[in-house]
Amino acid sequence: MNKLITILCLVTLNVFAQASLMETHHLMPWPKSIQSNNQRFVIDENLTVSIKGNNPYRVNHAVTSFLRRLSNRSGIFLNEGFAQPANNKKQASIQIKYNNIAKLIIQDDESYQLDVNTNQVSLVANTDVGAIRGLETLLQLLTNNESEYYIPGVSISDAPRFVWRGLMIDVSRHFQPVNVIKRNLDAMASVKMNVFHWHLTDDQGFRIESKTYPKLHELASDGLYYTQEQINDIVNYASLLGIRVIPELDVPGHASAILTAYPELGSKQDATYNIERYSGVFDPTLDPTNEATYVFLDNLFTEIAPLFPDNYFHIGGDENEGKHWNSSEHIQKFKAEHQLATNHDLQTYFNIRLEKILNKLDKKLLGWDEIMTPDMPKTAIIHSWRGEHEGLPKGGTLIEAAKKGYNTILSNGFYIDRMESVVKHYQTEPIGDIQLTSEERSRILGGEATMWSELVTPLTIDSRIWPRTAAIAERLWSEKDINEVDLMLLRLETINYRLEESGITHIRNKTVILRNLSNNQDISSIETLSNVCEPLKIYSRNEGGTEYKTFSPFTLFADACNVDAKDAIPFKKAVNNFVKNSSKENTLTVIEFLNKWVNNHKSFQNINKNPKLKPLEPLSYNLAEASKTLIKLINKEQVIKTERTAFNQQIDILSQPFADTELVILRDLEKLFEVLK
Amino acid sequence: MNKLITILCLVTLNVFAQASLMETHHLMPWPKSIQSNNQRFVIDENLTVSIKGNNPYRVNHAVTSFLRRLSNRSGIFLNEGFAQPANNKKQASIQIKYNNIAKLIIQDDESYQLDVNTNQVSLVANTDVGAIRGLETLLQLLTNNESEYYIPGVSISDAPRFVWRGLMIDVSRHFQPVNVIKRNLDAMASVKMNVFHWHLTDDQGFRIESKTYPKLHELASDGLYYTQEQINDIVNYASLLGIRVIPELDVPGHASAILTAYPELGSKQDATYNIERYSGVFDPTLDPTNEATYVFLDNLFTEIAPLFPDNYFHIGGDENEGKHWNSSEHIQKFKAEHQLATNHDLQTYFNIRLEKILNKLDKKLLGWDEIMTPDMPKTAIIHSWRGEHEGLPKGGTLIEAAKKGYNTILSNGFYIDRMESVVKHYQTEPIGDIQLTSEERSRILGGEATMWSELVTPLTIDSRIWPRTAAIAERLWSEKDINEVDLMLLRLETINYRLEESGITHIRNKTVILRNLSNNQDISSIETLSNVCEPLKIYSRNEGGTEYKTFSPFTLFADACNVDAKDAIPFKKAVNNFVKNSSKENTLTVIEFLNKWVNNHKSFQNINKNPKLKPLEPLSYNLAEASKTLIKLINKEQVIKTERTAFNQQIDILSQPFADTELVILRDLEKLFEVLK
Repeated sequence: MNKLITILCLVTLNVFAQASLMETHHLMPWPKSIQSNNQRFVIDENLTVSIKGNNPYRVNHAVTSFLRRLSNRSGIFLNEGFAQPANNKKQASIQIKYNNIAKLIIQDDESYQLDVNTNQVSLVANTDVGAIRGLETLLQLLTNNESEYYIPGVSISDAPRFVWRGLMIDVSRHFQPVNVIKRNLDAMASVKMNVFHWHLTDDQGFRIESKTYPKLHELASDGLYYTQEQINDIVNYASLLGIRVIPELDVPGHASAILTAYPELGSKQDATYNIERYSGVFDPTLDPTNEATYVFLDNLFTEIAPLFPDNYFHIGGDENEGKHWNSSEHIQKFKAEHQLATNHDLQTYFNIRLEKILNKLDKKLLGWDEIMTPDMPKTAIIHSWRGEHEGLPKGGTLIEAAKKGYNTILSNGFYIDRMESVVKHYQTEPIGDIQLTSEERSRILGGEATMWSELVTPLTIDSRIWPRTAAIAERLWSEKDINEVDLMLLRLETINYRLEESGITHIRNKTVILRNLSNNQDISSIETLSNVCEPLKIYSRNEGGTEYKTFSPFTLFADACNVDAKDAIPFKKAVNNFVKNSSKENTLTVIEFLNKWVNNHKSFQNINKNPKLKPLEPLSYNLAEASKTLIKLINKEQVIKTERTAFNQQIDILSQPFADTELVILRDLEKLFEVLK
Repeated sequence: MNKLITILCLVTLNVFAQASLMETHHLMPWPKSIQSNNQRFVIDENLTVSIKGNNPYRVNHAVTSFLRRLSNRSGIFLNEGFAQPANNKKQASIQIKYNNIAKLIIQDDESYQLDVNTNQVSLVANTDVGAIRGLETLLQLLTNNESEYYIPGVSISDAPRFVWRGLMIDVSRHFQPVNVIKRNLDAMASVKMNVFHWHLTDDQGFRIESKTYPKLHELASDGLYYTQEQINDIVNYASLLGIRVIPELDVPGHASAILTAYPELGSKQDATYNIERYSGVFDPTLDPTNEATYVFLDNLFTEIAPLFPDNYFHIGGDENEGKHWNSSEHIQKFKAEHQLATNHDLQTYFNIRLEKILNKLDKKLLGWDEIMTPDMPKTAIIHSWRGEHEGLPKGGTLIEAAKKGYNTILSNGFYIDRMESVVKHYQTEPIGDIQLTSEERSRILGGEATMWSELVTPLTIDSRIWPRTAAIAERLWSEKDINEVDLMLLRLETINYRLEESGITHIRNKTVILRNLSNNQDISSIETLSNVCEPLKIYSRNEGGTEYKTFSPFTLFADACNVDAKDAIPFKKAVNNFVKNSSKENTLTVIEFLNKWVNNHKSFQNINKNPKLKPLEPLSYNLAEASKTLIKLINKEQVIKTERTAFNQQIDILSQPFADTELVILRDLEKLFEVLK
């Protein structure tokens, strides 16, 4: 019993120590074990890095990137711009050592040991990928005072909790050029993510050059596709960063683009198909009863698969409602002949045929969770995406898949296109308190954030992915008990602007949109509004998928806004503090916010309006008026009945969407009024 | 005489009409002829575009880009996202017609006729490139009021003054990835530039994949080079935009990178060479007496030339000081044997050998003006770059070349890396009042802005090129008498932020650098300082080329600053107005500026300092103190002698560079003091 208490005390002490370290060491993901010492490794122009390990192509690249970023952050003019071999006469100040080259498979060892003291940094890993993960930690440790930049003394032992920590980018709904992918790979690497899932085909476009079936990219991409050399380039770049690339060719549904090029493979005979310009679930589906479909997929996969060295190949398999199957006589006949009772059975038949093609190509099949039907071989990986929103129990299909014997990864809860708070994603714990055997546990490989691109373009996509995905990266790398929201948010602030270093445009492009919105007038008033508004959530911005086409404008107020609006949490805190204790300080903080919105309307009135800004007028006006009333109430000035009525009307108006956004401080304004009235 | 007066009156009236149109129509370059009418073509969701002309690959691309930009600017959800053929049942609202496909040669016709009235836009051109030039004008015309977006009624006949309107980008000193080049091509097209001169090799790197001599990119690029497919991609993209691509392989000097890979071709025998990390003029030079050099260049040019369909090939030829030639016995012997009296003669011998190789490849030679020696064939184009700074008369070698019978282009005066005001570049008139025969005149093809990249990275390069290059584009496209500086600056303000549409990062990346400088604290105080500071000019930032290496940090205060600092001209005007007339309004304007700098120091003191910000402390402090004294003087408060002495000391301190920048309002502060003391 004494022993138990001691352990509990140690755990508690450790939790406190971690929390206090988190306040100064803005690491994300948080390492498995970290001890701080009182030393510091000061950065000066003489810094050198040595590498000990064979074939250091990944580590060399990482060191060069490390040195550039170190120099750009600190302003220090380094004498040496590149790594040196370990056998140099003069010992390097940062010494990296590793044993093996990672194979980029799920069994890879990504652990590392990092020790920093006054004179030396030592980074030791089993693999080169472990070493580059450690280099990112080292750079995140960099800090400064007024006169110098330094790495605080630490000893870190680190390794990931899950082996699959992915980001999916949909490049079909809106094409994302090579540089967009590369900067996101850099950002992923900076938070130790290791899987890039590339959703390459869908109803809105087929994005791979095919030499076997050139009509695919010629007729079904609007000219926006990756050449095979570009795919090689991206795959190689990802490999340098220790990131696996999983391609997805979504079949048999989501097939409008494929069928635009090859309509003869469709389930509806003699139909013509067109690339979709809207969003949603559409009917065009490959014909699983047509042998030509399998010849086509065999040839296509045989061409495409070698571009992606990874063992896994994602075949999609989601959201096939089977309408064209139901309405087709020959498909009904085929089902009857083959004792395939339901469309699910027919799709399983299709998936099993695909699995054979992929096996031949030495690839394992991965698919969205609809593929988990009774006959599906256990070699497939189940990608769990559906949850409560799709009528499934909380937690979705992940645990079910693991219990049934499938390897599985989680995306339910990590749908970053739903425009929900980072806190929700951070709190999506894949396993939770569920009891699993160690075998079942080992089948849960990890998860992926999914960036569906119906409403994003290269201008805005980064702002939807980041910084939120860094919190998901921590959920998948760090231990389960690393879950303090406030400390996550604190660290995320630093990670957030550091992401700019990878070329991530989430902060800078906001002002680009605001300048365009205002025709280059003073943007401060609409920026203030954007800091309390968020884009409509959970797909309500594009209800039914028919409000926005792929070529609609995405340079609107909603595109400048983002989830976790800048002033939302601070104002909520200010209101809560004030409600608890209306001290002078707490009162002043609330009044400062309210005054900002009162004054903001004056600035807003000063800019010349255009049709894009007009919908914001009632927002700006009513927010200012409601704030005025609240200030009066706080100051205990007389507020007459008509003003109270007006306040309620203002709140009513403010509860409506403005330009596809919602005012996220509404409840806090109401709360203040309730307390004060 | 009456007739002359009438003509003079018409000209004068026209100048006035143009000036008044310039205030509302922010076109750049300004068209050859423009008449406005009182109609307006209103943009709504039904807008359609038709194309009449064969093989409309360029115009189709331009229309798609036009529709996206129109939609993104206006927020209008268009029903049709692409061009339609002219034979559609329903007449399109914007009708484009052209006769021929431009060949991308200097004889191409880029003229167009644009007519806009209430119901219709008509764009007619001789070539597809003329049509896409006209589309850019149409988009520049787009304007709005509170309730609608529209194109004002106009009739425009336009054609360029010069056929060669180029931008050179040096990708050797700092490599610029494909996306940097592409966004700059888009920006060039938006201001009707038509030549991209690609400086691909220099002492700091060889940036082309060579299959014949792979050591070139393997050993002499740090892994930063363009694959041949990427070169094809860029050349094709440029062609879509009506932009010719001229490659430059700089020889026989600037050859450190080539000789790093193939030292046996160097003039210094048994030497080893390394990629240069510094800037400047270096000694490594190809050996023009070695037949192997010509075999190498023949093979290399034979491999590289076909990647670039243009007729011209730039061989550099500049800044060969011949030191290694002078110190080589066998080269001296060769000169004697071949009656080559000087190194210039030897280089001419080399150039003529190169010209033969290029002729065989159906290419004409283009070189920097050092190649203009007596024996140089008249088929070469002389690229005039040297001027007063290099000890030549004003105007440099351009007129001399034209008179001697060479085609020629001007870059002297367009060296945008010298960090001089846009006004200076705008006022660089290639011909001026010099009398030329029409034949001589026709040999002056145009000019190129040159972006040497010693001090720029992908993060900052756009801010050095733009918006200034738009003014150079106007100098080269528009008539000579379009030269009103204030109206250019007025229009440039609009063009400036519109460049963001092409992905140009000049505005947004400034804040990225400031956030990094301040460790994500409030950037307003350093932004205020950056609005009155400019990077040190005319290469004094990197005196002798040895202060910055290629891998030095370029995320410093000087990198956030730019020429034509935002507050410089407005403050100068405010001071001049005040000096002329100390009216209440003029006084207030000056005091507002001074107060800003007084208050700014308080904000500056509030942010935590780091080693990058510390050098700005004396700048911030002394600017604030000097401003305080000036306010006192303006307010006729008592200013004691020590304060006057202190002011002079403050000015002394402020006249020194701070963090590689200079305070550009210094003279205006002094002027105020002179008037008030």
